[in-house]
Amino acid sequence: MAPVHGFLYPKTATGRSSLIPSPPWHYSGDLLTVEYRTDPARVAELLPAPLEPAAEDPGAVAIIWADWQSCSESAEELLDPVRAQYKECFVVVRCSFEGRTYSRCVYIWVDKDFAIARGLHQGYPKKLGSIHQTRPHPYGQAAPRIGAGGRFGATLAAADRRLAEAVVTLREPSETNGFVNGHPMAHHRFLPSIEPDGSPALHELIESGAAGFEAGPAWAGDAELRLLESPAEELARLEVTEVIGAYFRQVGVVWNGGTRLWDGAAARVDSA
Amino acid sequence: MAPVHGFLYPKTATGRSSLIPSPPWHYSGDLLTVEYRTDPARVAELLPAPLEPAAEDPGAVAIIWADWQSCSESAEELLDPVRAQYKECFVVVRCSFEGRTYSRCVYIWVDKDFAIARGLHQGYPKKLGSIHQTRPHPYGQAAPRIGAGGRFGATLAAADRRLAEAVVTLREPSETNGFVNGHPMAHHRFLPSIEPDGSPALHELIESGAAGFEAGPAWAGDAELRLLESPAEELARLEVTEVIGAYFRQVGVVWNGGTRLWDGAAARVDSA
Amino acid sequence: MAPVHGFLYPKTATGRSSLIPSPPWHYSGDLLTVEYRTDPARVAELLPAPLEPAAEDPGAVAIIWADWQSCSESAEELLDPVRAQYKECFVVVRCSFEGRTYSRCVYIWVDKDFAIARGLHQGYPKKLGSIHQTRPHPYGQAAPRIGAGGRFGATLAAADRRLAEAVVTLREPSETNGFVNGHPMAHHRFLPSIEPDGSPALHELIESGAAGFEAGPAWAGDAELRLLESPAEELARLEVTEVIGAYFRQVGVVWNGGTRLWDGAAARVDSA
Amino acid sequence: MAPVHGFLYPKTATGRSSLIPSPPWHYSGDLLTVEYRTDPARVAELLPAPLEPAAEDPGAVAIIWADWQSCSESAEELLDPVRAQYKECFVVVRCSFEGRTYSRCVYIWVDKDFAIARGLHQGYPKKLGSIHQTRPHPYGQAAPRIGAGGRFGATLAAADRRLAEAVVTLREPSETNGFVNGHPMAHHRFLPSIEPDGSPALHELIESGAAGFEAGPAWAGDAELRLLESPAEELARLEVTEVIGAYFRQVGVVWNGGTRLWDGAAARVDSA
Repeated sequence: MAPVHGFLYPKTATGRSSLIPSPPWHYSGDLLTVEYRTDPARVAELLPAPLEPAAEDPGAVAIIWADWQSCSESAEELLDPVRAQYKECFVVVRCSFEGRTYSRCVYIWVDKDFAIARGLHQGYPKKLGSIHQTRPHPYGQAAPRIGAGGRFGATLAAADRRLAEAVVTLREPSETNGFVNGHPMAHHRFLPSIEPDGSPALHELIESGAAGFEAGPAWAGDAELRLLESPAEELARLEVTEVIGAYFRQVGVVWNGGTRLWDGAAARVDSA
Repeated sequence: MAPVHGFLYPKTATGRSSLIPSPPWHYSGDLLTVEYRTDPARVAELLPAPLEPAAEDPGAVAIIWADWQSCSESAEELLDPVRAQYKECFVVVRCSFEGRTYSRCVYIWVDKDFAIARGLHQGYPKKLGSIHQTRPHPYGQAAPRIGAGGRFGATLAAADRRLAEAVVTLREPSETNGFVNGHPMAHHRFLPSIEPDGSPALHELIESGAAGFEAGPAWAGDAELRLLESPAEELARLEVTEVIGAYFRQVGVVWNGGTRLWDGAAARVDSA
Repeated sequence: MAPVHGFLYPKTATGRSSLIPSPPWHYSGDLLTVEYRTDPARVAELLPAPLEPAAEDPGAVAIIWADWQSCSESAEELLDPVRAQYKECFVVVRCSFEGRTYSRCVYIWVDKDFAIARGLHQGYPKKLGSIHQTRPHPYGQAAPRIGAGGRFGATLAAADRRLAEAVVTLREPSETNGFVNGHPMAHHRFLPSIEPDGSPALHELIESGAAGFEAGPAWAGDAELRLLESPAEELARLEVTEVIGAYFRQVGVVWNGGTRLWDGAAARVDSA
Repeated sequence: MAPVHGFLYPKTATGRSSLIPSPPWHYSGDLLTVEYRTDPARVAELLPAPLEPAAEDPGAVAIIWADWQSCSESAEELLDPVRAQYKECFVVVRCSFEGRTYSRCVYIWVDKDFAIARGLHQGYPKKLGSIHQTRPHPYGQAAPRIGAGGRFGATLAAADRRLAEAVVTLREPSETNGFVNGHPMAHHRFLPSIEPDGSPALHELIESGAAGFEAGPAWAGDAELRLLESPAEELARLEVTEVIGAYFRQVGVVWNGGTRLWDGAAARVDSA
């Protein structure tokens, strides 16, 4: 019986091979957010028990592009940046659990395996995608500045199909970076039983949020957003009824674990 | 409380978005295998409780390249082949549990997200990699034939570093396609608690194997194999002491679930 | 003045760095072809001087997916298959030059740099794309067999947008693999002057074809084909009026240079 | 005879499909430079006629990583950033032509097709690679700041092999961003004849440089640099004898054509 180490698989004698190291995890990056309203029923149908729709503005959705650099406590990934950089596009709604409002990621695409693995731990339902967002830069004509009039494009594709396209034009400084993604996250973690028709091997609801946060000024802007059909995706089902607003912000985040809110296995027993 | 559907995340009202559909899963592909011996202690250190080293030839290792097409029962993925094709390179050792010999995948790299997700279910410790193997073809001078003298190259890279290179030259038909990967698989499924220092949310040992299998003739051959260092990998630690043999075979496989062998949570309680 | 070597850039003392080696180039692969008719004016507008539309069936188009392995005379690429394998999707029309009928590739996407470089030499207007086609395989349920009823999907994407999708169902053996791509190729090779408004640095029409060819039986089938819009592409402008037929064939090809048909620089002088 | 349009292939009635638009081309990005000395003979062997080694410090080499956003005069690519963003790693030496000192790119890897195509026009010997460099960011612990102590990693891989790795630690503001890449570029443009053993179809020496330039402050730093072997590359042959220095700078550049310095075809005639 060998003692194996590593936060996640593959576990080895040293732990060095683990796809991801232990938290805390550090992030530096740029967020481009478009908030809009869809039919609240389309949000509600993505909220399994024990969640309920948010009391206010239950059809509000945020689609967020993020261009990240990330690392573990050692920061060693930063000097081998293929292991630090990734991009993601994720879709957040709000919900309610035991009377409290939570944010919840219902769809998310990333472009690295370590990001998928972190999502597995955090309950983000990650797929691989191809994600791009315009980068601000202080010099030359091939980049917007962070300021009024700055225009940013953002696109998402998966399985060789474009799924979303946005163009955001910054207008003015903003008090907030939006409201839909502003609560602690409530995510299910789920794995089926290996045995056909068995009870899930894992079925729980967890809460997590940032353990540390710093940020530059938020900018508000105007947005165009298109969601496109794909046979393997349902993002376009969250159709855009009304754009609420758009935001750009540079942030630094620390993530360091969360709390288990609910145990599906125990709940099953309780209701039996 | 919305009923959500889907074998895995993201779960939706229709289930259509799930990263992977329910088993059974079908595979058609080519396997290129190199078997070799390493220091048995290097194998043993990858076998956590309740596993033990195999009784015979405990230092035997198989490194296997596979060029797959795969699909669900509907076979719809085959007509959108970006969702059906993937390549993998995996490393298998043998171990013992309750007196029975199992195969066990200790490292594996794939190049698609649906393959990562299947591995999550099956207990394969998958990372993304760039995997290539020479393809046989019946015409032209840019491919080996499947037959004596046919030469196949195979390479593995991850995070922009090459990790393994093999060249296999087929010699003669073979009764077997090797012995290391010939047993049912014994894999751990593991997910840490979301709470720092909590007990694992999931920690179990499962068994699975092919629910269906057909294959062409196996060919045996000679192999050269190089394993290369990387700061984020330990494949090269399974250093090649002696090449046992090499094999090429075209196969069709069905996978349809497995059995839970051991529950780490219960085991913890038992030993308390 | 150092003697530098290499068929193409970068040229070095040894020639080993050249992006591509000297011809002959060998190819082994599978071709999936859909032939259709479009408005002949849409074909004609892609035929610059000195070309003219083909005399017969001037609106005929072939869109061809190819899953290749390729190598130079040394064949060394085959043992390092990341340097040998590539996929392409290309669109062929016919044209006439000095009374002879030629095939001509008007659009083409590949997924490797060495394929781009060969196209530069051969006059194929190559871009990078993501190309997939169903692979036949003799075992399992995750692949069609090469035979009646075998169904093959094929897709093309570039810049994260899907550009073409086809499904081909094989029906019966066929005398031919289509007729649109059956002539020698007539391609322009062109490079602008480095000086603004200067005459082109290179502007010529070349002819080339296979120096060697072998193939398995051709299969004819039925096809569905969709061409999709993109702001940076005009493939969809060659809209499908009528599907002519579809074909699958495994081939081996040798390419070894061609002939210069016409010199744009001289033509300019002649017409002055 | 249809009038076709487009700066480069594929040429169409509208010109919209051209892989690259007409210059001017705009760039905004971050440059990470390591300058070092190698054996001057290794530089000289990369300088074909009519070039000669630089008079001073003929063994000086710069290896430069660049993280770019780029666009044409319309700037439309910036709102579809998959068509604007690319990364490159390139190696520059100096040389002399008719008594004047030039910079010259001897090796370069990029990660997009439009960047390859621009290089074709500009005489950069581009291959595809996987290029990463640490990005500075003003917030969080997952990025260096642009300032003393900021540490940046940079890596290059091609064909699944790592070719170069650097770590740069910024020390102090600098008057310059290095000297090796500070001259106009002297590049050959070359294409073989389509006819075996024919004279080159194109063989010329061109000069080009920035038509516009703005930049932030340059920072000087200390560097570690490793160059790694590959069977298809000769970068490691420019081995590091002595690191000269390292630099980081954010720049905006405009490129808008150049001048033909020398015509290989005419030179051949002259010397006949």
